[in-house]
Amino acid sequence: MFNTNIYTTRRNELTTKFTSGKVLLLGNIENPINFEHNTYPFRQDSSFLYYIGIKSPQLAAVIDIDQGETILFGNEMTIDEIVWMGQQQTLAEKATLSGIHKVLPFEQLFDYLKKGEKNLIHYLPPYQSHNKLLLGKLLNCPVEQLQPSIVLIQTVAAQRSIKSAEEIVELEKAVDVAVDMHRLAIQMTRPGRYEYQISNAMQHFAQDQGMSFSYPPIVTKRGEILHNHMQFHQVHEGDLLLNDSGVETSLGYASDLTRTFPVGKRFTSLQEEIYQIVLHAFKSAERLLTVGARFKDIHLKACEALVEGLIQVGFMKGNVQDAVVNHAHALFFQCGLGHLIGLDVHDMEDLGEQYVGYTEAEPKDTKTFGLKSLRLGKQLEVGNALTVEPGIYLIPELTQLWEQQNLHKDFVNYDFLKKHLKFGGIRIEDNYIMQENGARRLGKYLEREVNEIYQLKDSAPN
Amino acid sequence: MFNTNIYTTRRNELTTKFTSGKVLLLGNIENPINFEHNTYPFRQDSSFLYYIGIKSPQLAAVIDIDQGETILFGNEMTIDEIVWMGQQQTLAEKATLSGIHKVLPFEQLFDYLKKGEKNLIHYLPPYQSHNKLLLGKLLNCPVEQLQPSIVLIQTVAAQRSIKSAEEIVELEKAVDVAVDMHRLAIQMTRPGRYEYQISNAMQHFAQDQGMSFSYPPIVTKRGEILHNHMQFHQVHEGDLLLNDSGVETSLGYASDLTRTFPVGKRFTSLQEEIYQIVLHAFKSAERLLTVGARFKDIHLKACEALVEGLIQVGFMKGNVQDAVVNHAHALFFQCGLGHLIGLDVHDMEDLGEQYVGYTEAEPKDTKTFGLKSLRLGKQLEVGNALTVEPGIYLIPELTQLWEQQNLHKDFVNYDFLKKHLKFGGIRIEDNYIMQENGARRLGKYLEREVNEIYQLKDSAPN
Repeated sequence: MFNTNIYTTRRNELTTKFTSGKVLLLGNIENPINFEHNTYPFRQDSSFLYYIGIKSPQLAAVIDIDQGETILFGNEMTIDEIVWMGQQQTLAEKATLSGIHKVLPFEQLFDYLKKGEKNLIHYLPPYQSHNKLLLGKLLNCPVEQLQPSIVLIQTVAAQRSIKSAEEIVELEKAVDVAVDMHRLAIQMTRPGRYEYQISNAMQHFAQDQGMSFSYPPIVTKRGEILHNHMQFHQVHEGDLLLNDSGVETSLGYASDLTRTFPVGKRFTSLQEEIYQIVLHAFKSAERLLTVGARFKDIHLKACEALVEGLIQVGFMKGNVQDAVVNHAHALFFQCGLGHLIGLDVHDMEDLGEQYVGYTEAEPKDTKTFGLKSLRLGKQLEVGNALTVEPGIYLIPELTQLWEQQNLHKDFVNYDFLKKHLKFGGIRIEDNYIMQENGARRLGKYLEREVNEIYQLKDSAPN
Repeated sequence: MFNTNIYTTRRNELTTKFTSGKVLLLGNIENPINFEHNTYPFRQDSSFLYYIGIKSPQLAAVIDIDQGETILFGNEMTIDEIVWMGQQQTLAEKATLSGIHKVLPFEQLFDYLKKGEKNLIHYLPPYQSHNKLLLGKLLNCPVEQLQPSIVLIQTVAAQRSIKSAEEIVELEKAVDVAVDMHRLAIQMTRPGRYEYQISNAMQHFAQDQGMSFSYPPIVTKRGEILHNHMQFHQVHEGDLLLNDSGVETSLGYASDLTRTFPVGKRFTSLQEEIYQIVLHAFKSAERLLTVGARFKDIHLKACEALVEGLIQVGFMKGNVQDAVVNHAHALFFQCGLGHLIGLDVHDMEDLGEQYVGYTEAEPKDTKTFGLKSLRLGKQLEVGNALTVEPGIYLIPELTQLWEQQNLHKDFVNYDFLKKHLKFGGIRIEDNYIMQENGARRLGKYLEREVNEIYQLKDSAPN
């Protein structure tokens, strides 16, 4: 946990946005795998972590605006539980560390919430089914009719969007370990290995540093499959390996890095050419990260940089700006340039992208292919932590579909492109914090220039 | 997957127990960690695996008794999903491998179930909240009023309790990898290591064999904490390490092994003395594993063996049989001698221990401390796969409580015992399959004799 006053300050700040009512924060439970008592690793809800900081299951907290107090609802261990799980810090002790001095048995939450007016109980959108059911019971409301509080969502999103100094320290820790983990992956990758071996070795490395993956890693020779979690391929000379992976610190802060590199010692000439295009777009975007800039504009500028390169290679043609305005680049770059990071790798995605990455005045484009996958569009503020992650992906199924639909024939050289549909995909991704004077890359530098990657590969131990 | 005819045979056998109605089998989903799209590793429901065999999320199957057909409900991938996740085997192709020739979109399950009589829809008890909510919606029934089908539970439990030849092959694979994993743990454990390092190295080893942990492993110097998942301790000369861990094959079959060994090269004399008591009880139980024997009786015989030894050490006193009849041994052995294993490490625990480990004629003792934790009590049958896992655990909090309550003063030497409350715990566990001529230990032999463990430690690479 952070220091006690960090949690009380966060709660006090939250409280100022409400004049009356109760803020109900639900913690997570230990989720069953294949029966109730065989459970996945516990992960506390991020907003609960942010305001309460206690990493134990089956808790709820109420910030009572009218009474000006926070109550933690949860149960102390029984003697049976002590026999099975060992004596641990009591809940009251943990609550004290969070600046909370009132702890009540969990069951009392039901009666407690009955007392107040139901429409003054503010809660966030539940994403785990357990908490959907629990909210339904607590509020005596069908699950389909639950109404998360927009004002609470907006308040939490605004507060969590601005990272404090101690949060930045955590994010840097997460990046530093991820950098070493990525170097390990670059150095151990060689012809004959299997993707899962690389992924497993990274997990082992991270866990031995007391961290865990912040999301299921993408470690694949088929980088064009954007959310590829299949890791059964053997990798060969001439293949690319795309490694999108990050770690989470013990306090819950995530990193999210991607590198794409040759399985053998060197890229092929086409691979190097495409890599340089992505790297150029990456650096263009990095330079544009300034306070006040709209991230959607930076995204579109990066798309232009990609299209410039794709025209030079011969995959695209025509006018660069026109191609981007018409979203023709989305055949090669189907997703967004980046997203916020923090206690979640897609920070606060559970609260809704509209509230987290966009504003009411400039809402998210939920229709246009490409833009509908851009999670962050709004102006950057001091304290925002975010990723930059341009890429080029050659997806056979999508190319076939677009050609059949005669889409963007003025911008896409389908005949030439179709000769290279086994290319795969390349992405480069780093993490940044926005400061008054611009963006600062978080954590240690991870090799990204072609010659730097070659050096890493050449110096790999046998 | 197994061969197609295995699944059709299993479903046909299930069908014979019903004259009319529908058997509804729900698959699992990908469960969210901290937001909807950041998910835990997918694990299919075990009964769904058993009858359908398809390891994909968001599926349901209906075995229609009246029509004599099985229908799989699930959705083929959209082009958006292919872009993000890659072209995969179609659902129709997967269904064919399971002998199912009718696949309908998932949404049609709602209308389909409305047609029949609600009380003729048989389903198993849901353990994931997602499926509780889904069942409520499918059957238009409040979640609290769902009524899983007792006849279906009993039929599934009877069928899954008897392992076929190909299931035994899978269980042996799971044991074999776990044996090597345990040897790695014994050899890498030495003063100065941390518990989590040993656990992480085991996970890495298992994953590189294409397997995963079948449950969160217990790797601890404080073996007396029965479900200890804290792994932050550094281990020192003189400590014991208890390692309770197993793996799951790609088809879902689990192993569950425990060894307890010295962190340094040798046990202390008290550790060796207690180890030999547990090993003696273990071998006594192993010899008693015969078809037709009641596992509860074997449990109680093992308790007697433990008490004999505990009297020799001086922790207990009085008559052995009297001590066990009065459950005085439960101060040292608080849990059960074993449980069924299979597609779940506690096989079919989701169906209810009463139906899986006991019979209506001889129900589970849910009150007596010790026996209430015995998951298996009934007569052993040919084809049962199970664990044997006696242990001795010195739990300070429990000892203090019993002494305060003046419990079993005729059988427990509290004064002497209290001098050794930092001892910890020892457990030895192997897996067996019941055959006509007795029990056969599954998989490779894992060192369990004191001198065998010493040899392993002495031959550890640096």
